[in-house]
Amino acid sequence: MIRRATTVDAVVDAIQTLAVRGAPAIGIFGAYGCALAARLHEGTERERAFLRIRDARPTAVNLAWAVDRVRASADGDYLEEARAIHREQVEVDRLIGEAAIELFPRAGNVLTHCNTGPLATGGAGTALGAIVAAYRAGKQLHVFAGETRPLLQGARLTMYELRAAGVPATLIVDAAAALAMREKKIALAIVGADRIARNGDVANKIGTYGLAIAAAHHGIPFYVAAPRSTFDFALGSGDAIPIEERRPDEVRIDEADDVYNPAFDVTPGRLVTAFVTEYGVIRPPYFESIPDLESRADFLAAKR
Amino acid sequence: MIRRATTVDAVVDAIQTLAVRGAPAIGIFGAYGCALAARLHEGTERERAFLRIRDARPTAVNLAWAVDRVRASADGDYLEEARAIHREQVEVDRLIGEAAIELFPRAGNVLTHCNTGPLATGGAGTALGAIVAAYRAGKQLHVFAGETRPLLQGARLTMYELRAAGVPATLIVDAAAALAMREKKIALAIVGADRIARNGDVANKIGTYGLAIAAAHHGIPFYVAAPRSTFDFALGSGDAIPIEERRPDEVRIDEADDVYNPAFDVTPGRLVTAFVTEYGVIRPPYFESIPDLESRADFLAAKR
Repeated sequence: MIRRATTVDAVVDAIQTLAVRGAPAIGIFGAYGCALAARLHEGTERERAFLRIRDARPTAVNLAWAVDRVRASADGDYLEEARAIHREQVEVDRLIGEAAIELFPRAGNVLTHCNTGPLATGGAGTALGAIVAAYRAGKQLHVFAGETRPLLQGARLTMYELRAAGVPATLIVDAAAALAMREKKIALAIVGADRIARNGDVANKIGTYGLAIAAAHHGIPFYVAAPRSTFDFALGSGDAIPIEERRPDEVRIDEADDVYNPAFDVTPGRLVTAFVTEYGVIRPPYFESIPDLESRADFLAAKR
Repeated sequence: MIRRATTVDAVVDAIQTLAVRGAPAIGIFGAYGCALAARLHEGTERERAFLRIRDARPTAVNLAWAVDRVRASADGDYLEEARAIHREQVEVDRLIGEAAIELFPRAGNVLTHCNTGPLATGGAGTALGAIVAAYRAGKQLHVFAGETRPLLQGARLTMYELRAAGVPATLIVDAAAALAMREKKIALAIVGADRIARNGDVANKIGTYGLAIAAAHHGIPFYVAAPRSTFDFALGSGDAIPIEERRPDEVRIDEADDVYNPAFDVTPGRLVTAFVTEYGVIRPPYFESIPDLESRADFLAAKR
């Protein structure tokens, strides 16, 4: 089903109801949403529309980043700026995929969580894009995908995208991940991110933290694939990342039940083996590991 | 909804479709099923019926244990033996609850997984029975219950039983357990078991292994509450426990998807802080920790 948003209300609604989800895709959509808002509204109303879109979801940093970029455009260039963000994301995903190939074994099982493919980024994807890039480069991979409760992005979207890409895949319930690591000899886990703090702490889909702990327990490398726009250098650690709690109805069967329904968790940077970005593979101590000095400066300055 | 099984086929079907589930409840039901089979059938047909019931599910040891006890009864005493098993389970649950009270803090949050209450054992329950016993003894507890995908025993049954018992509870998706341990300051985790090997390895609902790893990571005690009938001294370790894989349809949305759907996982004994049994709290090196020598001999001999 294809939905079309033609008002600011519809843009905000599409983000809040997760019709558009995945941190980079939300960024691109938010940017186009601002271009739409600029066409429909002027002055303070336009600015209010920008801020409504910016605040539609709190955890992913890409949305605020993209909206701020469009807001800062010269008047009239809003659509061009949104298109640039979209174009850049496609290129960024390609570079992430390319950089990730070396991390994968010649053959083996890999684990991922939630959805990080084309439906999440607007390009080839981050973690899923990396898996597909490695598969196309000849690595004989088999993917184990967590279904990703409560909204089942893994079962609904990731399995669909893997089938479309021709990559062999098996669906598991999220709680089977630790057993799969041991019984299916998972070679590595790779996930995306919604926000990354300066110390490497990662906000990502609920369940990521448990996966990272289980991966460490089994001695399995745990990779996070994310574009530069997901890093938020304003934050020293993950403690300051706002974690969105969503509606109880996503989880409960009985209306009387109390529910704790965080959409994300924060994984400490020490559990992350490396980040895969468009600047290459970044290992602790992170930014010092970017080999090319000019790239490092670019990375830190968030220039493209 | 109440279902009534009046044929051996119906008994086997109720076990296989999980109309009856929970290791001790399956044992009691299997015992009554044998009494029914003995009334309906004779000779080799009766023996075949016993074996069909015994093999209806592979992982929990209680079923085989209960069927063997009824089979070994003097002819005509089948129903009396099934009733004895049922009566004993009620008493065993009471003793487990009593023994567990000291493990709980005066006040705090506790985590459990799957369903281990009256609907799982026929008595007060094992892990859930322990929580309720501690709550009734004045401990100010709040329970976080994992929904337990794919069949949602936590969301459907545990939340219902906790409400019925008046114990404050919050439902979470299974993948939120690690975050809950950190953010909600979980004081301890307690689960049931389907089979326990001599070295303390525990087969239990899928997800238990990941919970135990996360509990160890956070320094949180991880308890397993189970009756003596769940211990299988024939097994040196969990490697030999058969793990039932269930139908892909329990998990997948798209029929084309491959699914790995183990109903259970095996948690290494080293991740278990202690077992709570009707013989008291048993810590490594396990059976030597039973203080009373006569009880220890009873425990090892599986006498009641």
